[in-house]
Amino acid sequence: VVRREVVQLITPGTMMEGRNLDEKENNFLVALTEFQGSYVLACNDLSTGENTVTMLNGSMEDVLLEVHALGAREIVVSSTFPTDELHKLTSQLKITISHEDETDVPEELRQLVSHLQDEKLMMAVGRLFCYVLRTQKRSLDHLQPVRMYYSNQFMKIDVHSKRNLELTETIRTKEKTGSLLWLLDKTKTAMGGRMLKQWVERPLVNAMQIEERHNMVETFMTHYFVREDLKEKLRDVYDLERLAGKVAYGNVNAKDLLQLKRSVQQIPAILELTKQLESPYADALVSEADPCESLAELLERSILDNPSLSIKEGNIIKDGYNSTLDEYRYVSKNGKTWISEMEQRERQLTGIKSLKIGYNRIFGYYIEVTKANLGALQEGRYERKQTLANAERFVTQELKEKEALILGAEEKIVQLEYDLFVELREQVKAYIPKLQLLAKIVSELDVFQSFATVSEEEQFVKPQLSAKREIFIKDGRHPVVEKVLNTKTYVPNDVWMPQETDMFLITGPNMSGKSTYMRQLALHAIMAQIGCFVPANEAVLPVFDQIFTRIGAADDLISGQSTFMVEMLEAKNAITNATKNSLILFDEIGRGTSTYDGMALAQAIIEHIHHHIGAKTLFSTHYHELTALSGQLDKLKNVHVSAIEENGKVVFLHKVKEGAADQSYGIHVAELAELPSSLINRAKEVLAALEGQEIKKVPEPQK
Amino acid sequence: VVRREVVQLITPGTMMEGRNLDEKENNFLVALTEFQGSYVLACNDLSTGENTVTMLNGSMEDVLLEVHALGAREIVVSSTFPTDELHKLTSQLKITISHEDETDVPEELRQLVSHLQDEKLMMAVGRLFCYVLRTQKRSLDHLQPVRMYYSNQFMKIDVHSKRNLELTETIRTKEKTGSLLWLLDKTKTAMGGRMLKQWVERPLVNAMQIEERHNMVETFMTHYFVREDLKEKLRDVYDLERLAGKVAYGNVNAKDLLQLKRSVQQIPAILELTKQLESPYADALVSEADPCESLAELLERSILDNPSLSIKEGNIIKDGYNSTLDEYRYVSKNGKTWISEMEQRERQLTGIKSLKIGYNRIFGYYIEVTKANLGALQEGRYERKQTLANAERFVTQELKEKEALILGAEEKIVQLEYDLFVELREQVKAYIPKLQLLAKIVSELDVFQSFATVSEEEQFVKPQLSAKREIFIKDGRHPVVEKVLNTKTYVPNDVWMPQETDMFLITGPNMSGKSTYMRQLALHAIMAQIGCFVPANEAVLPVFDQIFTRIGAADDLISGQSTFMVEMLEAKNAITNATKNSLILFDEIGRGTSTYDGMALAQAIIEHIHHHIGAKTLFSTHYHELTALSGQLDKLKNVHVSAIEENGKVVFLHKVKEGAADQSYGIHVAELAELPSSLINRAKEVLAALEGQEIKKVPEPQK
Repeated sequence: VVRREVVQLITPGTMMEGRNLDEKENNFLVALTEFQGSYVLACNDLSTGENTVTMLNGSMEDVLLEVHALGAREIVVSSTFPTDELHKLTSQLKITISHEDETDVPEELRQLVSHLQDEKLMMAVGRLFCYVLRTQKRSLDHLQPVRMYYSNQFMKIDVHSKRNLELTETIRTKEKTGSLLWLLDKTKTAMGGRMLKQWVERPLVNAMQIEERHNMVETFMTHYFVREDLKEKLRDVYDLERLAGKVAYGNVNAKDLLQLKRSVQQIPAILELTKQLESPYADALVSEADPCESLAELLERSILDNPSLSIKEGNIIKDGYNSTLDEYRYVSKNGKTWISEMEQRERQLTGIKSLKIGYNRIFGYYIEVTKANLGALQEGRYERKQTLANAERFVTQELKEKEALILGAEEKIVQLEYDLFVELREQVKAYIPKLQLLAKIVSELDVFQSFATVSEEEQFVKPQLSAKREIFIKDGRHPVVEKVLNTKTYVPNDVWMPQETDMFLITGPNMSGKSTYMRQLALHAIMAQIGCFVPANEAVLPVFDQIFTRIGAADDLISGQSTFMVEMLEAKNAITNATKNSLILFDEIGRGTSTYDGMALAQAIIEHIHHHIGAKTLFSTHYHELTALSGQLDKLKNVHVSAIEENGKVVFLHKVKEGAADQSYGIHVAELAELPSSLINRAKEVLAALEGQEIKKVPEPQK
Repeated sequence: VVRREVVQLITPGTMMEGRNLDEKENNFLVALTEFQGSYVLACNDLSTGENTVTMLNGSMEDVLLEVHALGAREIVVSSTFPTDELHKLTSQLKITISHEDETDVPEELRQLVSHLQDEKLMMAVGRLFCYVLRTQKRSLDHLQPVRMYYSNQFMKIDVHSKRNLELTETIRTKEKTGSLLWLLDKTKTAMGGRMLKQWVERPLVNAMQIEERHNMVETFMTHYFVREDLKEKLRDVYDLERLAGKVAYGNVNAKDLLQLKRSVQQIPAILELTKQLESPYADALVSEADPCESLAELLERSILDNPSLSIKEGNIIKDGYNSTLDEYRYVSKNGKTWISEMEQRERQLTGIKSLKIGYNRIFGYYIEVTKANLGALQEGRYERKQTLANAERFVTQELKEKEALILGAEEKIVQLEYDLFVELREQVKAYIPKLQLLAKIVSELDVFQSFATVSEEEQFVKPQLSAKREIFIKDGRHPVVEKVLNTKTYVPNDVWMPQETDMFLITGPNMSGKSTYMRQLALHAIMAQIGCFVPANEAVLPVFDQIFTRIGAADDLISGQSTFMVEMLEAKNAITNATKNSLILFDEIGRGTSTYDGMALAQAIIEHIHHHIGAKTLFSTHYHELTALSGQLDKLKNVHVSAIEENGKVVFLHKVKEGAADQSYGIHVAELAELPSSLINRAKEVLAALEGQEIKKVPEPQK
């Protein structure tokens, strides 16, 4: 018995290929290291070779946020890391925990971290690299230098809000279709798709960087023909990053190299098109690109246009690349032509049109004849080999002889092609760093063309950033809802919040689009800060540091946490962490408890935000009594969603207007749903009696 | 070029195997035929051969309900069937529409419908069978006689309520885990699993049939050892129904026949164990069973214990079954022994322990030696054939000669084994009807042992059926929540609804388990009516004809229907269709609109049910003001969920008690969630002020 060694461990975070690896998503492996109150997170995508590291000076909540933003499937910690801390991650995310105690950066990967100063960062990266080497057991020539970033370079959005806003997947189906990412994704390459997802997960907070992106989108919009040509070229660029990874790993096949060739062949045209944009940002982006023309030429010369998948079965290398190979092929080809000619001859000889010559493992080459045609065969010439349900298989003396000749030449071809391929693969390795740089450039161009394309198709507008906390949105739309509905039926809405207004108290019936209105503003802010245009006719927005939402979500029967507790926890999170520069969206806070109780809480929360935080806030409620607060709270304004009656039925206009709603429409909805008319009449009677009573006075707000 | 004919169309409803076919779910194909105001639904599971037909004298809503209960994936209609009617199905279900206009039952399937009298039924079945024959293009020897049933034999539960109650899948994940079916499923066979699912989808309404099932469960509970022995035997019974289907189709392989053998071998013991139950119902169940011992004997003699998957590659038939086969094998086996001996000899000769002899398509038999060991090979003896990364492959003259001999004998073996297998398959076909009957018997026994097992493990009790619309549940539990939580932490609750009480108005804070209490009652009713015991210490229940629920569900951002509209539509459905014998569960109806409006609607709905329907109803609400109704409505009783304060914090006891809740706890929850204390104090201040006002009078109820 031969003893076999483990050659590679495949874990959720180190998958290089297969059905679990989405081409438009990174597959991140994260290593977490704690240093008394701060956490260092090092991160690697083995399929693309990317590495990052960041330090978080907060709690495990911040780690959760970061790991969620990365979409990591596996996290590596020391074997002594406290289990209850890890539970904060595993209870929220589908993630595998792995252990690695070694933290010294391995010698052969030192040059990837030579620019990092901090010992803590080095240790975290060390843990990551040691784990990768230990599981992969091979050299990793495609790993890229570790990029350091700070989490405060990005807008903070908690995990619940991200889910609520359906940034990258919908709440119901957990699928991309129907999410913001789905709407924005007009990328033509897998790499562009991955970068877009990273951008959506991390909106910027630096106004200059944001405006730089807006300008690039504008450039792409004004250069229509350049953009269309670029898209055409991008369509033929395959996943350079992951192809580079496969080359480094040595598990590349001929089809992969063919994809690499087609991709590299597009680069000169892409660089030329980029120059035509005449944008300093674009010029800087491509300034260090090497088009790798010699690589394209090499692959063009060597690899067949339709090679076989396995590298051990021949049919990979082009004629003319190697003279010995050409000779072997001459023999083999003649043999095959002969087999094909023999098939023709046998058909003519026997008159059987369906006669064919095939090949299988046990019987070798054979002549197959259907049962109905057996009578047409000449006696003595055919030796029976195998009987199937509808056919018989035969050989002839001639067929046996030619078989021996063909198989001999084939053996030699297979061997030589394998050797030539291995040699070629080694040559390609030298190009990896250049290919990775090209991948970054192509990805970014792809994201910008995607932003420009969707902005043009959906009529988005370039947002202006306000340094004075002003929001002026004219005819804003919820991009996903608009897309899914028919455009004509979607009713746009304004948001008009000058410096001196911080809060909208929104009243109005259900079905009228209150929560769509709220989500819409959050999406505008996020779209603007990832660098995209926004769905409106005019848009002025501040740069928000954080977004908090509490918008109706499903009760979870099993988990045992009721909606109301979740609601209060999310409210607490917003109230504790929001600043003057944040955006808060509260949808019917307090409705989960009884009337007075909920009303009292809602009022206290509104007053607290108004007095102590001053964040821009949208607060929707069914407690019409709260609209009286606008008299006392000077930064609060009432708005409502209007409706009209037509032919005795209620028609919702989905239009947000100033002032409080003066009536409620539940009973009309019940009419639309065709509840019995006696029941409806009784409800109207009860309502009239309730409304006839003296209006309840809400206690004076606290100043 | 050979012209190929289409030999089979595989559609969603006619799949026989593959990853999309869950072993514990039927795969039903439905044919729908309309006759002026009534619909006939014919149904077939091609994998098991089951056929049913039913007539629905209602609307497309009833068709929807029925198709949903079947979980059908494909529906066959005439090409003139109105598209807007079909849209009612396709908008709610994932279902493929197919067309078939022929409605005459094909000649060869006439005997399956000879007992049906009604021409309409015959036409519907005709459409179904014509479609199946047209797509499958072969004889279908395993189709069973068509069983006729009436939809009013079963409790009616609308699609929304089924989803809300999580009978067969959870709302969030759409998976079985966490559903009632998941909890109840202790079946040992795939067939039992399918029957259990059918039972859960269709609770009975006939008290005698229900009690018969309860008695069987009781029998199984008291016969512990018989049950355990039976489970042991069932574990070795494979999917007889689908195996029979594969035999009829001619796509059975040797492993399938082996499974069939193991299954049939268990039957005598299963029948014997059933007798030991000494139950008339059980005796009747097995009275017509044929244990098919001759089949078991035939398969035992013929099929190898570990046969190959393909029937075209030999290695299927046992030695001793056929003398010619035995002869061929003698030659082949000697050859193989020789190869293995040669491997030993070559190892000794060269001293290379890792040397091995292998086989592949192009090179045939070869000797493989790792590169490190090449020096140990004797010059001239080995002819190089192939070079791999770490090894070289060789042949010798001896190896080539033996190869020719072995492959010759193998060819003959493969051919003969194929012929013998086809012969065997035809013999098995004759047993199909007997096997299908055994499948039905085994399924039912399996479901009963599953009910008994879960009832024992989870301490369920045998319910008594009340003919006087009484509900008396002592210490009832929600079985799934109890299972998922720790048993010790689950708080059981009573439901005490004598004849003269129809409604509970339930008040109390969130997190206290109001909706769990409501769902619990619905699950008790369903469990009792499918024949299972129920999670309580004592249980008296009426037989409900229908269950209606309106229990909080997720808002759907995209679909555009708001919760409130959904709520009103579900309320309308209940109010229109419920009878005195129905069960209605309404969770916070009216909370989706503003305070007065919602309160007025809730009151009108309560009064309507109380005066005009009289169904048993649980109605939970946050409108504490409604508790005053109990003074006027004599069949309504107030109950509430209690809570206590410990160390200034609120502790929920999850205990339902008589009377209205006297206080609300939203602010305390906010405290638990640790909102700022200044905010909490302010909320308390506002609440105190609100409560200090004169209590609002609810208008007198309509009599």
